[in-house]
Amino acid sequence: MEIKKGDKFNEIFLVNENIYKGFISIFNDKNPLHTNRKFAIEKGFRDVVTHGNILNGFLSYFIGERLPFKNVIIHKQEIKYRRPVYINDKLSFYAEVMSVFDEINVIEIKFYFINQDLLKVASGKFQIGVI
Amino acid sequence: MEIKKGDKFNEIFLVNENIYKGFISIFNDKNPLHTNRKFAIEKGFRDVVTHGNILNGFLSYFIGERLPFKNVIIHKQEIKYRRPVYINDKLSFYAEVMSVFDEINVIEIKFYFINQDLLKVASGKFQIGVI
Repeated sequence: MEIKKGDKFNEIFLVNENIYKGFISIFNDKNPLHTNRKFAIEKGFRDVVTHGNILNGFLSYFIGERLPFKNVIIHKQEIKYRRPVYINDKLSFYAEVMSVFDEINVIEIKFYFINQDLLKVASGKFQIGVI
Repeated sequence: MEIKKGDKFNEIFLVNENIYKGFISIFNDKNPLHTNRKFAIEKGFRDVVTHGNILNGFLSYFIGERLPFKNVIIHKQEIKYRRPVYINDKLSFYAEVMSVFDEINVIEIKFYFINQDLLKVASGKFQIGVI
């Protein structure tokens, strides 16, 4: 396979207003934490918190477009959210190949996202199949 | 808490063209499996396969908008993709509360999505915090 254990990848993702508003317009999640600044501040955040699943959209892009092959499908994903992500946060994404199972065309990759203040905002892993 | 172990929820989600195209326009994942019918058919599917992470967008809506309380944040999520989802598939979403940890305001919920042919297309679980 064109990938091996220990291979590393990184990307920059900007959580801009466009992505934030687009996510709301598609999925209609207007929870007050995402849309009501006063509510978010009352809950201890400094502004509205963007949707965690925006990060899963970035993962979709990474898997679909940035691996060294295109013939891929996702089997499973896990993500832990560690800190809030705000509008206009600039996230650094790091991924590392944990395992390659050549016989069954399966690859496991772990990842994390760090914000511009070098705080880890999310981490997780996913398993993909080469098809 | 306004929720208890064993509580069940369900929703219907239509993976329409709008959502499919909107997801691509936001996240830019144009992997050929999602955009090239000939490629998808060569790989054994009947048409382009929609992005698995669209289901995570539906989860965002469910958690943010359809639980009996709005003061909620996601701690972690897991999803397994079992079968392809195609454009215009009508998905039934089922969720069940697995655990409620009152002392720490944490709830665990498992879920699955079934398509119009009654095939399970994805399943998983998530942990949320009441804030």
